[in-house]
Amino acid sequence: MKFEIKRDRLLDGLNDVMKAVSSKTTIPILTGIKFDLTTAGLYITGSDSDITIQTFIKAEENGEQVINIFENGTIVVQARMFNEIIRKLPTNAVEIEVNGQNRTHIRSGKSEFHLIGLDASDYPLLPDIQDDHQFSIPADLLKSTIRETVFAVSTSESRPVLTGVHWQVKSGELECLATDSHRLARRKVTLQQLPEEEFKVVIPGKSLIELNKVIADSSQPVHIMMTQQQVLFKTEGILFYSRLLEGNYPDTSRLIPSDYNTTITLDGKALLQAIDRASLLAREERNNIVQLTSLGGNIIEISSSSPEVGQVEEEIQATSIEGEEMKISFSAKYMMDALKAFGGHDIKIQFTGAMRPFILNSVHDKAILQLIVPVRTY
Amino acid sequence: MKFEIKRDRLLDGLNDVMKAVSSKTTIPILTGIKFDLTTAGLYITGSDSDITIQTFIKAEENGEQVINIFENGTIVVQARMFNEIIRKLPTNAVEIEVNGQNRTHIRSGKSEFHLIGLDASDYPLLPDIQDDHQFSIPADLLKSTIRETVFAVSTSESRPVLTGVHWQVKSGELECLATDSHRLARRKVTLQQLPEEEFKVVIPGKSLIELNKVIADSSQPVHIMMTQQQVLFKTEGILFYSRLLEGNYPDTSRLIPSDYNTTITLDGKALLQAIDRASLLAREERNNIVQLTSLGGNIIEISSSSPEVGQVEEEIQATSIEGEEMKISFSAKYMMDALKAFGGHDIKIQFTGAMRPFILNSVHDKAILQLIVPVRTY
Repeated sequence: MKFEIKRDRLLDGLNDVMKAVSSKTTIPILTGIKFDLTTAGLYITGSDSDITIQTFIKAEENGEQVINIFENGTIVVQARMFNEIIRKLPTNAVEIEVNGQNRTHIRSGKSEFHLIGLDASDYPLLPDIQDDHQFSIPADLLKSTIRETVFAVSTSESRPVLTGVHWQVKSGELECLATDSHRLARRKVTLQQLPEEEFKVVIPGKSLIELNKVIADSSQPVHIMMTQQQVLFKTEGILFYSRLLEGNYPDTSRLIPSDYNTTITLDGKALLQAIDRASLLAREERNNIVQLTSLGGNIIEISSSSPEVGQVEEEIQATSIEGEEMKISFSAKYMMDALKAFGGHDIKIQFTGAMRPFILNSVHDKAILQLIVPVRTY
Repeated sequence: MKFEIKRDRLLDGLNDVMKAVSSKTTIPILTGIKFDLTTAGLYITGSDSDITIQTFIKAEENGEQVINIFENGTIVVQARMFNEIIRKLPTNAVEIEVNGQNRTHIRSGKSEFHLIGLDASDYPLLPDIQDDHQFSIPADLLKSTIRETVFAVSTSESRPVLTGVHWQVKSGELECLATDSHRLARRKVTLQQLPEEEFKVVIPGKSLIELNKVIADSSQPVHIMMTQQQVLFKTEGILFYSRLLEGNYPDTSRLIPSDYNTTITLDGKALLQAIDRASLLAREERNNIVQLTSLGGNIIEISSSSPEVGQVEEEIQATSIEGEEMKISFSAKYMMDALKAFGGHDIKIQFTGAMRPFILNSVHDKAILQLIVPVRTY
């Protein structure tokens, strides 16, 4: 294998692939990244066995020669070391050559590195994905859908299936839902050309967080393919594979209340900032609890106290308060996470009682639903 | 105590003082900061007992009213909490009021915090500094002098005096010197109006690093006052106190060789970058060693190898190589630290032999000297 490549273009590709490489892997070859040089261009693959990312750098892009190929071939090199070397090379022209015993030479300016590579035939193959359940979604819609749900996955391994986001295609809609049993985030997306048969999968939250870092903000479609064990997200130049979580995702439909005693409509951003301030004191206690109280004249009060440090209270002018008076305590963190999903728009909070889960919606549409279980404080 | 203050001006003051506050202190009141409100303005003090920083915010600055004072007074409040609260307040107008039992009220917009304060009379007094050995130095010269020496202090507590920088006034010069016994950094500064009598002190490296964060880049003078136990750095609006280290600083004058067998003159920046690259492989080994070899034609080679990972070599064109051929091994980290002190100018490296300390100077002047003890590699 021998080729010349522009350093900045190689770094872009490495940057994506490195997100799949973990230094904590128990499979030694996965500390490496695989290069496959073909006549068309260079494939770079990284994996931690849960996530696999492959990028492709075309030899020629828009009439510009990005890679000069002298001899095709494959190699695996230590990922972190290779990435740091490329980052620090003195010139933008890089020559990479592999000869006997996987010796890998990197040349740039007057600098020359000789690395001990590994045999690419020992590197795991890409997951085999049939186009069973295939559909596509614009990149920016996919990214916001992930952002609005993934924070609510469980971080505890006691019920592994809750560490993932439940994706379900049903009645012409994609529904993404996450819950850690203290709060729940749900996002519905209406898509054209969804697969006809219903299906549901659970995608690890960690995979979706990494996916969001790899996908560029754009309206370009991301093609999604599902099998029983794997999901593949495919964009221009990038393949992102994730394993799926096994086990049945719990039925959450009965968690969501259907009738309400109090409805508060207000500016989500003002509420977020007030809770952020109140949580400064709430954080000192272990539970991080703030209290919301409806007062007269469409005013609500956010308050918190810590016996050691002091108290805080703040009034917010709501747009409207309908129904019974309300006094309820909840986790400041869960509330802030939920409010951030609405991006600062006006929101509607619906309560059934101080001990019952309450829900948040945008006043504009019902695409996003956030549910929070309150905390008993007396 | 009761006053109104502009939030951004208060935050600036807090930002400086917080650098002295440690969460690891064993003296509970030092987790707090002290406020002294006088008719002239607000003094804010923070301390970890090694370093004490006091800032002063004038009530009126350039004809603008920064503080509206209703009632003078003093209070100590929990530093980290107070700072975070001020940072997150909803408006730029802040009212602070202390009433019975040190209850401290912070009001801004519709937000109101009530903190449990501490009695300011329990807060340690500022160190008592006489103007014994007083001189001044422009802020930017002070900052570069610190930067060029402080990195060489010892991080080991086995000889505590080596964790400080030795400052000595002698023959009309200020000499600042640090060594961890593997390398040495020395900076000489010629100053007008130095104290007439000679004196020497050892200032903790940690204090000088914090001082450099507090002093603004400018050519304004910093007034320096020394006693046996304390040093005070005084600028417009800021007092920075540090305790001094006890014990005799070793005589280092005999460490510095006086005659040399090989002198290499070259671009310090090119050498720094080559060593940075070579150290990528050197770092994999515990010792982080790179090798410098003089070749013919004014070329030097920087190289390094790691049995597990591979090798690297790079040639650099020197301006001149005088004297004997040289092959020497040293710590990449020490060499990079030393080269950074010269800010990328052309430098001169003088060697006495592969086993003897070597020194670096700027080709322009001798104000900075860096010395490195080589490593035996065979």
